[in-house]
Amino acid sequence: MKIILIKDLQKEYKELGGQEVSVAGWAKSVRANGSIGFIDLNDGTAFKGLQVVFDANLSNYVEVEKLNTGSSLVCTGKLVLTPENKQPYEMHATNVKIVSSTDAEYPLQKKRHSIEFLRDIAYLRPRTNTFQAVFRIRSVAAMAIHTYFQENGYLYVHTPLITCTDCEGSDQMFKVTTLNFNDLPKDEKGRVDFSKDLFGKQAFITGSGQLHGEAFAMAFNKIYTFGPTFRTENSNTKIHANEFWMIEPEMAFCDLNGLMDVEEDMLKFVVKYVMEKCPDELEFCDKFISNGLLNKLTNLVNSEFKRISHHDCIDILKSSGKTWEFEPDYEGDIAKEHEKYLTEHFGGPVFITDWPKDIKAYYMKVNPDNKTVAAVDLIVPEAGELMGGSQREENFEVLKQRMQELNIDESKLDWYMNLRRFGGCVHAGFGMGFERLIIYLTGMENIRDVIPFPRTPKNCMY
Amino acid sequence: MKIILIKDLQKEYKELGGQEVSVAGWAKSVRANGSIGFIDLNDGTAFKGLQVVFDANLSNYVEVEKLNTGSSLVCTGKLVLTPENKQPYEMHATNVKIVSSTDAEYPLQKKRHSIEFLRDIAYLRPRTNTFQAVFRIRSVAAMAIHTYFQENGYLYVHTPLITCTDCEGSDQMFKVTTLNFNDLPKDEKGRVDFSKDLFGKQAFITGSGQLHGEAFAMAFNKIYTFGPTFRTENSNTKIHANEFWMIEPEMAFCDLNGLMDVEEDMLKFVVKYVMEKCPDELEFCDKFISNGLLNKLTNLVNSEFKRISHHDCIDILKSSGKTWEFEPDYEGDIAKEHEKYLTEHFGGPVFITDWPKDIKAYYMKVNPDNKTVAAVDLIVPEAGELMGGSQREENFEVLKQRMQELNIDESKLDWYMNLRRFGGCVHAGFGMGFERLIIYLTGMENIRDVIPFPRTPKNCMY
Repeated sequence: MKIILIKDLQKEYKELGGQEVSVAGWAKSVRANGSIGFIDLNDGTAFKGLQVVFDANLSNYVEVEKLNTGSSLVCTGKLVLTPENKQPYEMHATNVKIVSSTDAEYPLQKKRHSIEFLRDIAYLRPRTNTFQAVFRIRSVAAMAIHTYFQENGYLYVHTPLITCTDCEGSDQMFKVTTLNFNDLPKDEKGRVDFSKDLFGKQAFITGSGQLHGEAFAMAFNKIYTFGPTFRTENSNTKIHANEFWMIEPEMAFCDLNGLMDVEEDMLKFVVKYVMEKCPDELEFCDKFISNGLLNKLTNLVNSEFKRISHHDCIDILKSSGKTWEFEPDYEGDIAKEHEKYLTEHFGGPVFITDWPKDIKAYYMKVNPDNKTVAAVDLIVPEAGELMGGSQREENFEVLKQRMQELNIDESKLDWYMNLRRFGGCVHAGFGMGFERLIIYLTGMENIRDVIPFPRTPKNCMY
Repeated sequence: MKIILIKDLQKEYKELGGQEVSVAGWAKSVRANGSIGFIDLNDGTAFKGLQVVFDANLSNYVEVEKLNTGSSLVCTGKLVLTPENKQPYEMHATNVKIVSSTDAEYPLQKKRHSIEFLRDIAYLRPRTNTFQAVFRIRSVAAMAIHTYFQENGYLYVHTPLITCTDCEGSDQMFKVTTLNFNDLPKDEKGRVDFSKDLFGKQAFITGSGQLHGEAFAMAFNKIYTFGPTFRTENSNTKIHANEFWMIEPEMAFCDLNGLMDVEEDMLKFVVKYVMEKCPDELEFCDKFISNGLLNKLTNLVNSEFKRISHHDCIDILKSSGKTWEFEPDYEGDIAKEHEKYLTEHFGGPVFITDWPKDIKAYYMKVNPDNKTVAAVDLIVPEAGELMGGSQREENFEVLKQRMQELNIDESKLDWYMNLRRFGGCVHAGFGMGFERLIIYLTGMENIRDVIPFPRTPKNCMY
């Protein structure tokens, strides 16, 4: 008895019509009237399940009729084509093997549960329709990203997570140690002696693979990273988590315009890929999570992203006649309310380029005006900032000066600076928070609901 | 002037013959005789570079002639087909733009450097032939793994890295904190007060996503993880690092035989995929890193992996007539020397099944003999153990008893145990260390040379 997956059944049902098949999965629901019954069976490989029809000829009819939601079963029977029905096929079961029935304490019932309730049972929520949709989209979107970059000649680089270079400011990084907290070795001055730690010095978990990515771009031309990232931010918002996944591509011989080309091309590819592979999941999200989602995604694929400077954005915001909570400022950041206005104003995604130097990082290419840097944020309707990138400062002397201005410790970054002395070139890169993308693709509102097991302040369950 | 990548040139050179093209990259070598010169130009997108021929007509001939290895250039000229040569095309340059020449301190010269020397300049070594080959194979192998699992209906799950469940024993896990080491908050008893830490309790970095993966397999049937993993082992061997990448698939309705089918099928797929996509890189590895590599890989693809129990392996070892450093033991582990003998004895990869219960983990399915567990290690010629997996104990009572026997703290794993109460089923999974695979695929000997920036005891550079 070979078990067939429902995803394969969906493809091959015409050939299999009339044959006996076996499907292993979980009962989403069971209803029966004493002589005939229906199991909505799902094996997790496809969004839509299989209808299994059973009747009193089943030797264990009485047990099957009483099965709880979530019970695991192996159903065997004839696959019957039903072209007249909504579902083009169903199984007429001759055998229903009860592998394990859920007991009375099973928290998921055949009703709609609140998203907050489900968040508390993160180990069970992937069994619900909502999270079947979200996590399958997440998996397919990850594959879309790998496919895009690999097909376009990018090298996938696993940049290190543990680092002793605290260039981003150790305040934002988790510290890692093998030392015993209750018996820390001390030096003569009474300070913790990290020379006794595993790496012989204090170590952190990084918040970015960019610097290491640049080293690889200077060897492989086009590279990308895709891995977990950590921030210690103690903020409880809908879009921040302490552990999330990030994609960081880096391209040699690429300027700011080239960078925007890649960002736009990649995003459209990913959206199209997910639309093609997850039609059922997106339809569900459009219907039950975010009305208009499919429309939004289709528009994105067909639109040309606007490219406009930070300065010109401030002009637009100032002349909008609107009252702002945060006054638009030529020297300042773009607030959420501004982003919203701009994406609505332009009716789609907007690249905001050439940001004030003083609010951006040291490694960004200083423009000839010496006031702005060749940085770009991509903002999209509803989700706000989706990607942030820049040309990197490839001039050794300018980079050195910027690091001094911003009190960046050069001693730990000599290798990074050396990339400018040893065959450097114009290059650029960006970062995309993967969860932001999934929020955009699914219409979910909270980052806690697009990560399998979210980690946020005071919350590290499971 | 549109720049073309060398990987695209390799595909399209016939159509481009006679046309003017531009290529941006780095000089691997420059040699000239006063009137004509040759640049071996590589842009990092393909293993083999482009020969650029230049002559005294070049306006900056004198500068180009003197270029150092590693300088970045943009070369423009006619692509000339040379079917009579080993290289079927070359560029006759009309313009060589020097983007940035390397200065005299550039550590890489046009000679062979020792692998240890290169290890110390991890930010530059990806520019050498050896590491161009190794890291491209690494990238392609990662894509092969994603392709295999996605095409076969597996869901890619990002299991959490930060965890408060110290089920594997916190000795083997890094501790993470946001607390100030030199000013730790203390409780009344003078112990560190982790309630003040970001998560409100002590947190670790996990060494496995298996338990969380099982939760997702009970919803999506077939899942896999692929992410970084951490171990605090203070051991300086060729095959251990404190940070490495791991793949952990988990399958519902799958027993030990089904598990071995997946392992064998997946490995053959990955090897074939890399052989198809990286012929130049593997040829280089075969020639300069590990003679016979291609032969070994071809044999693997064509072999049928032997399946044999631990008990029968010990029989073979005992009756071999050999003198062992570690005496083969029916109750004990299989040593490196035994693995070597067994793979040679069977002439290929060997699945060793049904291990003594007492040397394996609590979550492994206890066999009816109550002495062994349904676990399996895959050992391969030269690389030794490549994958380790097992059927998981799906019986709640047996699992509970095993946890008690091994002093596993149940209180933090109630959710994991509940998977057995809520629609559980026979299921199985395995883990594969990604670096082990890369060692196997490239013939490299040291894990430090297959990870971009390795982290090992006392070593956390860059």
